[in-house]
Amino acid sequence: MKYVFFALAATVVIGSSAFAKEGMWTPDQLPEIADDLRATGLALDPESLTDLTGFPMGAVISLGGCTASFVSPQGLVITNHHCLRGSIQFNSTADNNYLVEGFLAESSDAELPAAPGTRVYVTVAVEDVTDRVRADIGADMDGVTINETIEARRKDIIAECEQQPGHRCQVSSFYGGLQYKLIDRLEIQDVRLVYAPGDNVGKYGGDIDNWMWPRHTGDYGFYRAWVGPDGLPAEYSEDNVPFEPEHYLKVSAAGLEDGDFVMAAGYPGSTQRYARMAEVVNTFEWRYPRTIDMLEGWIATVEEAAPEGTDARIKYEGLLAGLNNFHKNLGGQIEGARRVGLVDRRQQREQALNAWIEAEAPDRGFTETLAQLDALSEEITQAARDNWYYTNATRASLLSTAQRLYRLAHERQKPDAERESGFQQRDMTFFRQGMQALDRRYDPAVDRAVWLHFLQQYMNAPATARVAALDEALGLPDGWNEEIVGRILDRHYAETGLGEVDRRLALMDAELEEFESSDDPFIQLAVALFEHDMALERQSKDRTGRMSILRPDYMEAIINWQRSEGYAAYPDANSTLRITYGTVMGGSPRDGLMYAPFTTLEGILEKDTGESPFDAPEAQLERIRAGDYGPYKLESLGSVPVNFLSDLDVTGGNSGSATLNADGELVGLLFDGTIESVNSDWDFDPRTTRSIHVDTRFMLWQMDKVDGAHALIEEMEIVR
Amino acid sequence: MKYVFFALAATVVIGSSAFAKEGMWTPDQLPEIADDLRATGLALDPESLTDLTGFPMGAVISLGGCTASFVSPQGLVITNHHCLRGSIQFNSTADNNYLVEGFLAESSDAELPAAPGTRVYVTVAVEDVTDRVRADIGADMDGVTINETIEARRKDIIAECEQQPGHRCQVSSFYGGLQYKLIDRLEIQDVRLVYAPGDNVGKYGGDIDNWMWPRHTGDYGFYRAWVGPDGLPAEYSEDNVPFEPEHYLKVSAAGLEDGDFVMAAGYPGSTQRYARMAEVVNTFEWRYPRTIDMLEGWIATVEEAAPEGTDARIKYEGLLAGLNNFHKNLGGQIEGARRVGLVDRRQQREQALNAWIEAEAPDRGFTETLAQLDALSEEITQAARDNWYYTNATRASLLSTAQRLYRLAHERQKPDAERESGFQQRDMTFFRQGMQALDRRYDPAVDRAVWLHFLQQYMNAPATARVAALDEALGLPDGWNEEIVGRILDRHYAETGLGEVDRRLALMDAELEEFESSDDPFIQLAVALFEHDMALERQSKDRTGRMSILRPDYMEAIINWQRSEGYAAYPDANSTLRITYGTVMGGSPRDGLMYAPFTTLEGILEKDTGESPFDAPEAQLERIRAGDYGPYKLESLGSVPVNFLSDLDVTGGNSGSATLNADGELVGLLFDGTIESVNSDWDFDPRTTRSIHVDTRFMLWQMDKVDGAHALIEEMEIVR
Repeated sequence: MKYVFFALAATVVIGSSAFAKEGMWTPDQLPEIADDLRATGLALDPESLTDLTGFPMGAVISLGGCTASFVSPQGLVITNHHCLRGSIQFNSTADNNYLVEGFLAESSDAELPAAPGTRVYVTVAVEDVTDRVRADIGADMDGVTINETIEARRKDIIAECEQQPGHRCQVSSFYGGLQYKLIDRLEIQDVRLVYAPGDNVGKYGGDIDNWMWPRHTGDYGFYRAWVGPDGLPAEYSEDNVPFEPEHYLKVSAAGLEDGDFVMAAGYPGSTQRYARMAEVVNTFEWRYPRTIDMLEGWIATVEEAAPEGTDARIKYEGLLAGLNNFHKNLGGQIEGARRVGLVDRRQQREQALNAWIEAEAPDRGFTETLAQLDALSEEITQAARDNWYYTNATRASLLSTAQRLYRLAHERQKPDAERESGFQQRDMTFFRQGMQALDRRYDPAVDRAVWLHFLQQYMNAPATARVAALDEALGLPDGWNEEIVGRILDRHYAETGLGEVDRRLALMDAELEEFESSDDPFIQLAVALFEHDMALERQSKDRTGRMSILRPDYMEAIINWQRSEGYAAYPDANSTLRITYGTVMGGSPRDGLMYAPFTTLEGILEKDTGESPFDAPEAQLERIRAGDYGPYKLESLGSVPVNFLSDLDVTGGNSGSATLNADGELVGLLFDGTIESVNSDWDFDPRTTRSIHVDTRFMLWQMDKVDGAHALIEEMEIVR
Repeated sequence: MKYVFFALAATVVIGSSAFAKEGMWTPDQLPEIADDLRATGLALDPESLTDLTGFPMGAVISLGGCTASFVSPQGLVITNHHCLRGSIQFNSTADNNYLVEGFLAESSDAELPAAPGTRVYVTVAVEDVTDRVRADIGADMDGVTINETIEARRKDIIAECEQQPGHRCQVSSFYGGLQYKLIDRLEIQDVRLVYAPGDNVGKYGGDIDNWMWPRHTGDYGFYRAWVGPDGLPAEYSEDNVPFEPEHYLKVSAAGLEDGDFVMAAGYPGSTQRYARMAEVVNTFEWRYPRTIDMLEGWIATVEEAAPEGTDARIKYEGLLAGLNNFHKNLGGQIEGARRVGLVDRRQQREQALNAWIEAEAPDRGFTETLAQLDALSEEITQAARDNWYYTNATRASLLSTAQRLYRLAHERQKPDAERESGFQQRDMTFFRQGMQALDRRYDPAVDRAVWLHFLQQYMNAPATARVAALDEALGLPDGWNEEIVGRILDRHYAETGLGEVDRRLALMDAELEEFESSDDPFIQLAVALFEHDMALERQSKDRTGRMSILRPDYMEAIINWQRSEGYAAYPDANSTLRITYGTVMGGSPRDGLMYAPFTTLEGILEKDTGESPFDAPEAQLERIRAGDYGPYKLESLGSVPVNFLSDLDVTGGNSGSATLNADGELVGLLFDGTIESVNSDWDFDPRTTRSIHVDTRFMLWQMDKVDGAHALIEEMEIVR
């Protein structure tokens, strides 16, 4: 059984004889590909990787959005700097700016509480619940019923699972709903910041180097997981004790070399490897270009309304970074799609699938499924296009705040089990934190400018884009008139109470009547839009429900077709634990250009300008100039490796993933992919897909030679 | 005798075991480095390269600003596309746009005249005239006298040399005036365009790829040199016949590989390898940053005054390309200086030189020379700073036109031999062509905008920047006032006759009185500024004269010091024929990144977007897709090489240089350096200095498979 799903007919093979390995495998698939795992270099028994509570998988944890690992018997957790940066920021003040200086707890007493909402999730069990979720679901039902039935069953299963104290569970869909699994996770709530270098190490290169190689980012830091004296998850308390995980990773300071086996276990968020061509075309020809335009207008508006150096800019830096990151990603995806000829390749794939169906499975209804699937995709596309301007025109933060609060009041009318996901009792901690966090991310003048910008686009769009509920509630004129609309918005921000955190929190307990009789203009608007939004949601649920029938059928065709060709099919990423493996490997991103597999300490000197984001700490530069490599030097490189490349198949959510060697020892942390890789969410190109890791030898060198984090090195088990 | 002048103590040696070879050698130096030439791979006798009229040097010619080579017994000349692009443009019309379509003469009758002023210069002899130029020149003379004596002698020698009909001669200074050589060159005036691909091959990648690797530019084209029926240079005539050069290069289609010996003979323009530290500091800390600001203002002003799509923009495209090119170059130089630590390295060098002087030559007055040289450098720096704003404030094209014409009237008062260089009878053809060419590069509104922009900077500068002659002649107010200054400028452009070519040409014969009584405001201004400008020129000549004594002494110290260390010293580039040699070699421009030595046809497919400058002709793309490599494939590469890198030591002026293999056969044309190399004008960094060549196999493939230039292939002698 070969392991590659869609092997690329590479047109250009200059300077690279090896190809990256495609596949984000669920742990239970590993026995199926055990031979290749061994052939690639895994020394551990592949079977051992399927045991989520054994070594090494038991040491791999989720932070929700990032991946992390236990690296000591005392609950020490290693992850990316960018995954714990929010906690550094949360603890920083003008006098003690840990973002600049870095932070190192002198002892475990001195560890700082992580940012509100920080969690460590330890996956303890995975169970197939497909039969229970899908029982009696059929094409004879309407979409809304299908959707509501599935959602009700997922909520039931989760509620049962969460009877266990300290557990947080989820039911995840694989292969577009062909399979459902219950993921049972321990939820550790007391997480503390132990050590992180400053931004001038942990974020070295900043947005300029984001998604770029060569890279010299020390993107690592440490948390510790704490639990109650009884060993169970508990809120922060002085009585808490460090969590003692069943397994933790040893940290290698030994000689990882170009070509060596590596693997990463992590929680990749989302891929679209099985998207139909119609979805691909819509995405790359309409959605992404439109989104790029939208982002550019949004960014320009925020930058103008929140000039550099102002308090407002500080509040919007996170948003701007996110928008710019997304913008760069979409540009890379479009460029990547052009380079690999994504549409042509997808067309060829569909023709091959059709040919297989015709030859091998003419009687299984796949042809009809595909026709229905494509028709439904077209419906989804059309809905997105229809709602484009309206969706943007409601992007004001205070409006969405009002909408969420009013929706909560509606949901609170139902028994908890029937409430919409996100509005159940189990969601209220995060809901409350979101309402509190708004203060740190909101400025009325900027919010107004963004809203005005999008309302202008909405009002200048074709008349079909207009939504009567919005027009009437706001009293919008027929054509765009900045003065009139500006006055309407001014009144909203002048008269609203939603800018106050107490008001927002109070509204979490308010009854429907309070909203409906409110004279807060944002709440009035939320009430006025509710019916329209619910209608849209119902249409969306109908489409989702119908998709829950069609896509599993499509994936079944794919799996059978691929099996007939000798390939195993892995499911698209869905934020569940996956394993990807391959080797340390440079690459050729373009004809005539090559990426070396490692960067070195000297590359930091070379990049350093003394100005952010290339302003390495003087103590670090001094050690580099002195050639003080200690035991962390890679002889074949002549220096300490800083970052390295591999051909692992990853995407967003893998950040912080432990990179393991053949023996399951930690050799690095995955933190990024190259810009040429971002299109791999749609189509894995083995020539250009490369993930970027920070090397453990750099982390240990920095801790040992620069930051004096000797106690932590002592705490970990270092393999030399 | 080793050959490297200043060996770099490389701080970063990742991914590259070989180092580039420094040195732009004069042909007469080659016997001194013959052993290394042979060791590097030269198969020809190094001695043969010293014979400028023998093979292969007799085939290497200058176009004035570019280098070229004879490649057939019928005067066929190969050079870069960008070196003959002016001639393509000159012959293009809206209906026959050869810039877009390319041009191929069906037969020699159909060849097109090159742009006015195009010349082929064949160096026929070089003679040392140092004794004659420097006789009785001494530090006891004042600077102006020294300068005028040297200039008078140079003009004498040139005039004698040009007694030979059809010759154009020059006296060039080497080692800062330690040595003077008479360069005797045949000047062929009838040059015709034979073949050039379109911009979408010859300028593929455009400004985006300028100075960049990976590169895929087919930067080549062909002229033919024609002479009178008597074989002597003659103006264009139907009776002319192709020039029959004594030597021409064979063209290799054989297997040039990574690591193979290559050399280039060409006319590099200018380097500053021996500049003193004070000059380096002034350049990188004051002059370059100032110039970058100045260029940005200039570019923005032109772009605003000549919007895209206007006729005015077409006229200024050449200027904008030049300014942008310069801007990118300066940015690269500043970055390069930072990367190699230029100032520190120069300081170390000066300390080493001082130590040698103290130890080995304490009695030769070098220490005093260096002190005087540095003091004089400081004077030169100060003058440049003093005149910065005034110099820019007189950048209006019509003003410099008036100044040149008025100066000519002054010079015409003197016997021809005594006139300033550039204003002698021998210069009048180019002078007249310059006056004619203004029409193609001038638009009054743009010229006015540029002048206004620089006048604003001048008037907002510290009061010491103001020049009374300019202020009074223009009637400038004390402080900047756009309305008042704008009106002054409006009057200038409304009332001048210099916008008319006939007027400009007529003024070439006008007497001084006609200027002095003119009511043309630009001529009045030129007359008013004359005395001030002459005073500046006299001060400049005084400094130049004194420098003519000091710098040779400094260079003598350098040469002796270097000889004592076992190195040969080559003179800075000065637009005379030089030879540089090395190997085909990729490189590591930055830690973690590597340049492959070759690019391939497939890289064109990869880059191609269908939009300029990545809009390769469909016929070419089609041949690439078909894998139709013909006999031009490099097996080890699996494709036809398009461009390649080498470690040759080159600079501007080398463009078009024949790249020769060990047997002196043409394997490519040098056309650019990487952006990491531009700082090598100041300090040769063997790790990053790489020159970019278009491979003859690509040229032949394009001619054979795409453009159907079979007759030309037939005409050349191809080595397979």
